[in-house]
Amino acid sequence: MNSEQARCAAARIMARCDELAAISESSTHLTRVYLSPEHLRANQCVGQWMRDAGMRVWQDSVGNICGRYEGQQAGAPVVLLGSHLDTVRNAGRYDGMLGVISAIEAVHHLNAQGIRLPLAVEVVGFADEEGTRFGITLLGSRGLAGTWPAEWADTPDAEGITVAQAMAAAGLDIAQVASAARPREQIAAYLELHIEQGPCLEREDLALGVVTAINGARRLNCTFTGHAGHAGTVPMRHRQDALAGAAHWMAWAEQHTLQAPGHQVATFGTLQCYPGAVNVIPGEVKLSLDVRGPESPPLNRLLAELLAHAEQLAQARGLSFSAEEFYRIEATGCDPRLQHSAEAVLERVQGCSFSLPSGAGHDAIALAEHWPSAMLFVRCAGGVSHHPAEAVSVEDVSLAVQAYTHWITDVANAAGA
Amino acid sequence: MNSEQARCAAARIMARCDELAAISESSTHLTRVYLSPEHLRANQCVGQWMRDAGMRVWQDSVGNICGRYEGQQAGAPVVLLGSHLDTVRNAGRYDGMLGVISAIEAVHHLNAQGIRLPLAVEVVGFADEEGTRFGITLLGSRGLAGTWPAEWADTPDAEGITVAQAMAAAGLDIAQVASAARPREQIAAYLELHIEQGPCLEREDLALGVVTAINGARRLNCTFTGHAGHAGTVPMRHRQDALAGAAHWMAWAEQHTLQAPGHQVATFGTLQCYPGAVNVIPGEVKLSLDVRGPESPPLNRLLAELLAHAEQLAQARGLSFSAEEFYRIEATGCDPRLQHSAEAVLERVQGCSFSLPSGAGHDAIALAEHWPSAMLFVRCAGGVSHHPAEAVSVEDVSLAVQAYTHWITDVANAAGA
Repeated sequence: MNSEQARCAAARIMARCDELAAISESSTHLTRVYLSPEHLRANQCVGQWMRDAGMRVWQDSVGNICGRYEGQQAGAPVVLLGSHLDTVRNAGRYDGMLGVISAIEAVHHLNAQGIRLPLAVEVVGFADEEGTRFGITLLGSRGLAGTWPAEWADTPDAEGITVAQAMAAAGLDIAQVASAARPREQIAAYLELHIEQGPCLEREDLALGVVTAINGARRLNCTFTGHAGHAGTVPMRHRQDALAGAAHWMAWAEQHTLQAPGHQVATFGTLQCYPGAVNVIPGEVKLSLDVRGPESPPLNRLLAELLAHAEQLAQARGLSFSAEEFYRIEATGCDPRLQHSAEAVLERVQGCSFSLPSGAGHDAIALAEHWPSAMLFVRCAGGVSHHPAEAVSVEDVSLAVQAYTHWITDVANAAGA
Repeated sequence: MNSEQARCAAARIMARCDELAAISESSTHLTRVYLSPEHLRANQCVGQWMRDAGMRVWQDSVGNICGRYEGQQAGAPVVLLGSHLDTVRNAGRYDGMLGVISAIEAVHHLNAQGIRLPLAVEVVGFADEEGTRFGITLLGSRGLAGTWPAEWADTPDAEGITVAQAMAAAGLDIAQVASAARPREQIAAYLELHIEQGPCLEREDLALGVVTAINGARRLNCTFTGHAGHAGTVPMRHRQDALAGAAHWMAWAEQHTLQAPGHQVATFGTLQCYPGAVNVIPGEVKLSLDVRGPESPPLNRLLAELLAHAEQLAQARGLSFSAEEFYRIEATGCDPRLQHSAEAVLERVQGCSFSLPSGAGHDAIALAEHWPSAMLFVRCAGGVSHHPAEAVSVEDVSLAVQAYTHWITDVANAAGA
C-alpha cells in the first residue's frame, strides 16, 4: 500500500467510524452494548463493508461478525485481524471500531490489488470487549477462543435479563456458544490495531507504536483504621488519624512506583473518610488501589512492597491496615516474533519504531491464550478515551492502515515461507 | 471545703448530672436544644437546686437560668460562674452540665458554712452554647454579654422556625433580648469549670488543669484540580493526579504542624475524589482543612505556610490549588491573674499545676470579650466527648469541686482586698 492509497483508505476509515458512531441507543451520545438492536445493526453494516472488500461473511454463535478473504489455497490457516464493535456508555468512536474498519480496509487493498497471501485473512468485529452490559468482559473474543465459563449464561444485566435470555432475543442460542470456538490449528496469528488510550505516543511525537504486553492488574480495597477524635482537643502527637496514615502511604506509593522498574502504575482512585466531618479527626479511611504492569513477577513484587509499607506505617502510627484483593488479571505478553515484524514495518513507514505496554485491556488477552498475538497502537489526542472527545488524526490513520497492511502481508508471507 | 465535704459534694454532682441527663427529647439518648420544652424543664430543675443552695433565682430574657448568692454587702460586684445546659445530639451528660452543677455545689458549701465573700457569687446555666438547633453558637453567653447580632432573630432551625418564633413559643420575647445584657461593672470575673473533651489530662495522669486560652480556628474548603485519566494507560510521570498532590500536602502538613510551636493542630476531616472510580486517576480532590491554636499570630502563620506549600506542590505537579475560608474565630486568651490564682489552688489540692489550651469552644469566649475570664478543666475518660460514652470519675469531680470552691473564694477575696 503506497501513501496515496493509504490516504484514500484513511479517508474512508474516518467516514466509516462516523457512520458506525451513529448506531447508538441514544441520539445524543454513543452507547452500543452487547446483544442490543444497535449491536445487530452494527454487525449488518460492518458485514456489508466486509463483503464489499471481497470477504465471505457470517455472524458466529456469540454474535461476532466475521469475514474471510481466502489465501493462495482455499482452507489455509488464518491471519486473524480484529477488534471490538461494542462501546462503553457515552463512548468515543475509535476505541475498537478503528481496528475493525482498518482491518477491512487492509483486506480491501489486497483484494483491489488482486493479492492472495500464503495464509487466509479473516477480520472479526468482536461483539463485546468492554463488558458494559453484563459486567463481564471479552465475551466476543472468549467466544472465539472457546473460553466462556459456564456461569456466564446466567449473568444478568441491570434489568435482570441474563446473557442466555438476551441471546435468544437477538436470535442466538446459548446452547450453540461452543460452535463459535475456532480450532487451534486454523489460526496462525492474531494482529490487532487499536488506539493507545494513553498519552505516550503523543508525548513521543509518533503516530504508531508496537505493544509489548497488555498489563496485568490487581485491584484492592484497603482500609486504615485509627481513632476518631475532636479536631480541636486532641494534640497532633496523640492522634491516630487514619487519613494522615493514608496520605503518607499514598505519597510514598507514588514515589516508589515511579522509581520501580518496568512501566508499572499505581492508582488510588477512590477514598472515603469516616466519620467525614470538618471538625472530626478521621477514624477510618477506605481507599482503592489499582496496580498494573506488563509482567506479573515485578507487579507482584511492587504490590507486596506497597502493602508492606502500609502495614509498617500503620504500626508506627497506632493504626491498623487491611487490604482485600477483589480483581486480578495476569499480564499478557505479546508474541516476540510478531513484535519484531511490526517493529520492522514501523521503521519503514514511520522512520523509527517505538514499543510500549498497553495499560488497558483488549481482545488480544483472550486470543493470546491460544494463538501468537500482537498489537499496533495508534496515537489518540491527549490520550483521551472512553469519552466523546476521543480523536485520531486522518494522517495518523493513513500511516496506521499502511503499516497494518504491510504487517499483515509480512506475517502471512513469513508463515508461508 | 475539706476532702470529706468534697466527696459528699461530688456524689451529689454525679447524681444531678444523671438527673439532668434524663431531661431529653428522646428516651434513648440525650438531646436538649435551645428553647425546647426540655430546655425549660432543665431550667426549672437547675433553678430549684440553686434555690436549695441559698440563691435568688431568675430566668433571663434569652432563657439563661441565673442564681445569685449575695456577698458581704448587698449589690456587690459578682464572681460569675457557669457553663451551658444545652447539648449536641446524642450527647454525653457532663459537657456543660458538670460546670453548672459544680458551681451550685460551691455556693451550697459557702451557704452551708455561712460564708459571705467580699463579692457576690452568681451561677448561670447558659441556654445555648452548642448551636445544635439554629447552627449559631453561644446564644446564652452572648445574650448575657449583650452581643447578639440583629440577624439572629430571623435565623431558622431545621423546621424553618426562627429564633424569634421559638422564643415566643417558650414564653420569651425577642424584643427583650437586650435586657439579658449585664452592665460591665457588675461582673468582676468569670470562672468556668468544664470537662477537657480531650486526652491531655489523662495522658498527664492528672485530674485538673488550668486553661491558657481557647483556641482560635479557621476552616477552609480546599481543592486540587488536575487531570482525570485512565489508571492503566497514563504512565506515572505523565500524571496530573489530584489525589497524589493532596496526599503529599496532607503528609507534609501533619509533620509541619507537629513541628510548629505552640500547641497548634491541623485536621483534614473530609475528602472527596472526582470522578471517584477505581480505574480512573482522580482529576479533582476536595478536602477540608481545620486549623486551631491558642494564639492568633502563630495560627495565621501556620495557615499561611500550609497554603503556600499546597500552592507550591500544585505548581510542581501541574495541578491547580484553591482554598476558601468559610469559618474563622479568633483565639481567646484566659486572664493571666485568674490563671495564676487557679495554678496556686491546683498546687494545693492536686500537688501540682498543669496548663493547657482548650481545643473546643466554650461560653468563656463570649464572656472574655468584656470580663476577665478563665477556666478549669476536668479529666474525662479517653478524651471522649459529644458521645454517650462521655465519662468523669467521682474522685476527679471531688478534687474539681474542691479546687473550684477554693478558686472562687481566692478570686473573691483578692478582689475584696
